[in-house]
Amino acid sequence: MAANTFGEIFRITTFGESHGIALGGIIDGCPAGLEIDFDFIQAELDRRKPGQSKIVTQRKEPDVVEFLSGIFEGLTTGVPIGFIIKNDNQRSKDYDHIKDSFRPSHADYTYETKYGLRDYRGGGRSSARETVVRVVGGAIAKLLLKKMGVQVHAYVSQVGNLKLGQSYKELDLSKTENNIVRCPDEMMAVQMIDLIDSVRKQGDTIGGLVSAVATGVPAGWGEPVFDKLHADLGKAMLSINAVKGFEYGSGFEGVSLKGSEHNDAFYAEGGKIQTKTNHSGGIQGGISNGQDIFFAVAFKPVATIMMEQESVDKSGNLALVTGKGRHDPCVLPRAVPIVEAMTALVLVDHYLRARTNRI
Amino acid sequence: MAANTFGEIFRITTFGESHGIALGGIIDGCPAGLEIDFDFIQAELDRRKPGQSKIVTQRKEPDVVEFLSGIFEGLTTGVPIGFIIKNDNQRSKDYDHIKDSFRPSHADYTYETKYGLRDYRGGGRSSARETVVRVVGGAIAKLLLKKMGVQVHAYVSQVGNLKLGQSYKELDLSKTENNIVRCPDEMMAVQMIDLIDSVRKQGDTIGGLVSAVATGVPAGWGEPVFDKLHADLGKAMLSINAVKGFEYGSGFEGVSLKGSEHNDAFYAEGGKIQTKTNHSGGIQGGISNGQDIFFAVAFKPVATIMMEQESVDKSGNLALVTGKGRHDPCVLPRAVPIVEAMTALVLVDHYLRARTNRI
Amino acid sequence: MAANTFGEIFRITTFGESHGIALGGIIDGCPAGLEIDFDFIQAELDRRKPGQSKIVTQRKEPDVVEFLSGIFEGLTTGVPIGFIIKNDNQRSKDYDHIKDSFRPSHADYTYETKYGLRDYRGGGRSSARETVVRVVGGAIAKLLLKKMGVQVHAYVSQVGNLKLGQSYKELDLSKTENNIVRCPDEMMAVQMIDLIDSVRKQGDTIGGLVSAVATGVPAGWGEPVFDKLHADLGKAMLSINAVKGFEYGSGFEGVSLKGSEHNDAFYAEGGKIQTKTNHSGGIQGGISNGQDIFFAVAFKPVATIMMEQESVDKSGNLALVTGKGRHDPCVLPRAVPIVEAMTALVLVDHYLRARTNRI
Amino acid sequence: MAANTFGEIFRITTFGESHGIALGGIIDGCPAGLEIDFDFIQAELDRRKPGQSKIVTQRKEPDVVEFLSGIFEGLTTGVPIGFIIKNDNQRSKDYDHIKDSFRPSHADYTYETKYGLRDYRGGGRSSARETVVRVVGGAIAKLLLKKMGVQVHAYVSQVGNLKLGQSYKELDLSKTENNIVRCPDEMMAVQMIDLIDSVRKQGDTIGGLVSAVATGVPAGWGEPVFDKLHADLGKAMLSINAVKGFEYGSGFEGVSLKGSEHNDAFYAEGGKIQTKTNHSGGIQGGISNGQDIFFAVAFKPVATIMMEQESVDKSGNLALVTGKGRHDPCVLPRAVPIVEAMTALVLVDHYLRARTNRI
Repeated sequence: MAANTFGEIFRITTFGESHGIALGGIIDGCPAGLEIDFDFIQAELDRRKPGQSKIVTQRKEPDVVEFLSGIFEGLTTGVPIGFIIKNDNQRSKDYDHIKDSFRPSHADYTYETKYGLRDYRGGGRSSARETVVRVVGGAIAKLLLKKMGVQVHAYVSQVGNLKLGQSYKELDLSKTENNIVRCPDEMMAVQMIDLIDSVRKQGDTIGGLVSAVATGVPAGWGEPVFDKLHADLGKAMLSINAVKGFEYGSGFEGVSLKGSEHNDAFYAEGGKIQTKTNHSGGIQGGISNGQDIFFAVAFKPVATIMMEQESVDKSGNLALVTGKGRHDPCVLPRAVPIVEAMTALVLVDHYLRARTNRI
Repeated sequence: MAANTFGEIFRITTFGESHGIALGGIIDGCPAGLEIDFDFIQAELDRRKPGQSKIVTQRKEPDVVEFLSGIFEGLTTGVPIGFIIKNDNQRSKDYDHIKDSFRPSHADYTYETKYGLRDYRGGGRSSARETVVRVVGGAIAKLLLKKMGVQVHAYVSQVGNLKLGQSYKELDLSKTENNIVRCPDEMMAVQMIDLIDSVRKQGDTIGGLVSAVATGVPAGWGEPVFDKLHADLGKAMLSINAVKGFEYGSGFEGVSLKGSEHNDAFYAEGGKIQTKTNHSGGIQGGISNGQDIFFAVAFKPVATIMMEQESVDKSGNLALVTGKGRHDPCVLPRAVPIVEAMTALVLVDHYLRARTNRI
Repeated sequence: MAANTFGEIFRITTFGESHGIALGGIIDGCPAGLEIDFDFIQAELDRRKPGQSKIVTQRKEPDVVEFLSGIFEGLTTGVPIGFIIKNDNQRSKDYDHIKDSFRPSHADYTYETKYGLRDYRGGGRSSARETVVRVVGGAIAKLLLKKMGVQVHAYVSQVGNLKLGQSYKELDLSKTENNIVRCPDEMMAVQMIDLIDSVRKQGDTIGGLVSAVATGVPAGWGEPVFDKLHADLGKAMLSINAVKGFEYGSGFEGVSLKGSEHNDAFYAEGGKIQTKTNHSGGIQGGISNGQDIFFAVAFKPVATIMMEQESVDKSGNLALVTGKGRHDPCVLPRAVPIVEAMTALVLVDHYLRARTNRI
Repeated sequence: MAANTFGEIFRITTFGESHGIALGGIIDGCPAGLEIDFDFIQAELDRRKPGQSKIVTQRKEPDVVEFLSGIFEGLTTGVPIGFIIKNDNQRSKDYDHIKDSFRPSHADYTYETKYGLRDYRGGGRSSARETVVRVVGGAIAKLLLKKMGVQVHAYVSQVGNLKLGQSYKELDLSKTENNIVRCPDEMMAVQMIDLIDSVRKQGDTIGGLVSAVATGVPAGWGEPVFDKLHADLGKAMLSINAVKGFEYGSGFEGVSLKGSEHNDAFYAEGGKIQTKTNHSGGIQGGISNGQDIFFAVAFKPVATIMMEQESVDKSGNLALVTGKGRHDPCVLPRAVPIVEAMTALVLVDHYLRARTNRI
């Protein structure tokens, strides 16, 4: 059934395949009167774009967004914002070899089983190319959040076994964009780039972590019970291709703490109620408490490798599959803007939902 | 806005507070003709019930479910199943002291800020008492899944630093219910019980992990893009009180693997396509692939501790807060049936969604 | 699939059958801080209650609502409001004769075909008894609307061929509750009562119209395209048992007018923009324009008649069916509060939706 | 909030304004494996197209749909079908005069009030040009329904006071497309065309009725309570521009009948249960009963007339407004395919919903 929509009030619906004519989406529920900064949106797309550095796929796609509706004289009008991004650089022939075989750890087999047929070119709808549309939605969400004083920053905190030791508070996040791996620690960045480059030369791939922080979120966003703010963030992150895990605040490490160590004591400063520590990750009972919201997202190594792998064809016969075409040895650098986009989409939706809390 | 509903086709909507008259829910979209095993449903509630052992809260609540509609002559009729569970054992006076103060790492402050008022008795809607309703829904979902050959097993795999070394495949999950902590390894169970008991005596609390596995799920459940099967499972788990993280398949550990190590090779056996390894956790591209689905859920230590903690009142003045009443020193044992319930709700919904995949 | 929920932000989900243990519902999304007037809610239920006069069913049901959650110290808390209404006066034996046969123009056959089984007692879920839950939801919606200055009035404008000649503007709607048929014109009311009474004595039933007007709705409620205010009102009305048609503003009669006759000229008075006529029925492009919103709803004659009718049983054999039990000869008098309730539910939902129109 | 989506399982989301770059939509939830007949879809668009005859607007728009995703080798793949229709023939200058004034009985005033700004060119989003997208969705729905043996026919049954006396059963609906007004009675068609033409010459407009019938719908489609089949049909019709009323089966006329006259007696023929009459319009209790589903839709006269009308500007000052550009003197002929499209969208959605009725 219909499943390509995200959000309740600020809602994005998306379409498009890796090798189709175009991808695109409809943003419905964006309030009227928001000034659209087209350069900013394009800059966000450029952060995700293939071919931007030597450690990402060398596919060349311009990824230019064309807005078709919902904006008039530079302002949103309150009606749906339709947009498309054309696919210019498909090399569908790269995929003829998997027309009847299933690439390991891809969605070829599951799509074929679910639907009885599939667009095998570049993975079709299952390709991460789909996330280009999310970045457009996230960019508009960011423009609205900015007016609320909310900022979202993501960065690469781990590649393979190379893991940042510091928390986001000890890092200068303004440096994230200074290097091609998007790690705010420059020393670590150099090592990560080397690791990715060496993995790439082996025809292999590697996973890692993206960490993110949202600052300026006021207390009161998020809904009790099922639509807890962190539950919606978790779903948003887990919906991104290659994601295997999500944690917020103290996360998996917090489980070995005692309550007396983990609880965040309240205090007031200048009339504002704060917490001394922030194991809660800025969310208590599913609702933001005014502290920084932070979380981490685990990405597996890319499934397409330039090595021969054993697999099967539709009839269950042995089939050898080797990656062709131009692929990312590591999704992390390009995942950073996608994580930010999904974060922004969740936050802006809950901001609008919170408008109906009280009489 | 409305936020107390979970699911698309098989949908549960819930209500009720810790110290209100009753909690309850409406299951809408359950197919007609399902035989309801009332004893099974009550047994599931008993697994979650307070007072069941020395390591959980000593509150005494019978937690008897009363079905009000949707079942006729023992079968579901296709119309909504309404039900209630009465609150019998409230001691609201235990909460007078937090009427104007905020318990650390609880939802008191965020509810107050969001709504401008709150039912402070026992945490009101933010209490984990709410999960009793989910267990009823999950039990009915399990009855339907059972007809499909799907089983869901959860168990405690970590308490504090005590962590099971084995995967679910190396454990005998039929032993989970043999001990009060619900860990299938009996040796470890003893240690965990001791740890919880010692923490309890200190007036403190401790966190841990629940692991879960769903067997028998056929290939083809789950929807591309936003409603990926693991994204919905993640949201479901993160919506449970005290949860801080979710991972499936190779999870956070998988990020340091290379693609060549992580990919799950396909092979066919007896005409059935399988994978040799299962880093994918039974889900590829958001859709089940017929292998076991497994994941882990991180629970923080319970916020209510029997120690004096610094906090503030509504005006921001210093207020000392000490836990009163009867609380869990560790939620893990009682979380096991809740994790199973939410898993069943996600799976049954995607089972029904998958009925409309093809013409 | 799930289908027993109405509304987007202010959302009611309902359950319950005619002869089940209880009916009830969950109101989710009601803003916090609304004072609940329990007497008013019960008074609304009393307007719909069976047995209130000689021209309605003589079934005796107290229809007392019990609130189970969501209200604390007389105010809504922002979390779901759960409630039940117990069934006290079932005479299920009255329905044994239709266990295997289908009453003409009832839902017996369609439920049986759809679900493969049915709760035949009193029509089960298809009974108009279900609307008691809507009246509770509508009463709470009215309390919120009242704070916005919005009032909803419905009245009986036609019974059989007896039709009021005046529009709502020419009537004194405060007189609606002065007679048992709920027609504000007292002369006409007497005739209508006589007609219903005579039809009742024949064991027959009769249909009619309910007209309604909402005053005080500000400009700006309603959404473009699919969720137009009148489209949601129409769906709301058509979802009421026995309704066959809906029209608003100039309605079916307006189709024979020319544009030059039908258009509502704008003018301004005291700074407020108004229209000279109101063929638009207070809604233009699906959005309220600040004028009165008015519409009419067509109800068919009740299907249960005290006469022998030809029908078939499940096997298709001829079966004679005669109404037993206590039934309404005309639903119109009791439909008035139901029409008002559904109107209030639509309006309050769009009021809250409109809160997110603009940045 | 988001409001441009229709349907639950088979869901269409739309965007686009009268004078924007393009309109378009996303069909999400179409089952995989449906063969797409592109010629049929274009033919449906041609039935709605402006400029097709002398009695409709003389605007020239090619209305060519471009599919961007979701179709592979001529079959749907189960993922979203994105499409656009470019606007080629805008004359935005025709609307400069209403930039600051409100056309009577249009949505100019309500949009301005709701959103604080509006795209005034051609009515922007409020223009009936938006329905072109619905016709694409409806055409694909029809292709799926055709496989189920379901057909939808609409026709013009009234223009002004010219009203067909016969029911759909007494008409030869295959003749509907034989004349430019789309009335299956050729004698009446001639009169209707003359009336529209004469009204057009006066610079005026006229309303009318579209009647529709769906044949071949099996028993069991439609959901109890809120999502009754006729309630969803009603909402669908009322969401079309200029619609003021909806009735099905016996409709408004049925209200003056007695139950003994109105009830549809069941009988069985060749094992199939049928009804002797069909006042129910093929729907009982909100669920199809296997008989023909029929209904009527009231359209008001088009608001744009070529006469000077009194109105106000944004400041409330008197402003004279005269229609410019190329407009329909009567929407009825072009409304026929739109009514069919919305009917098909409702039916196909309920067909898929009904797949989850039973275990």
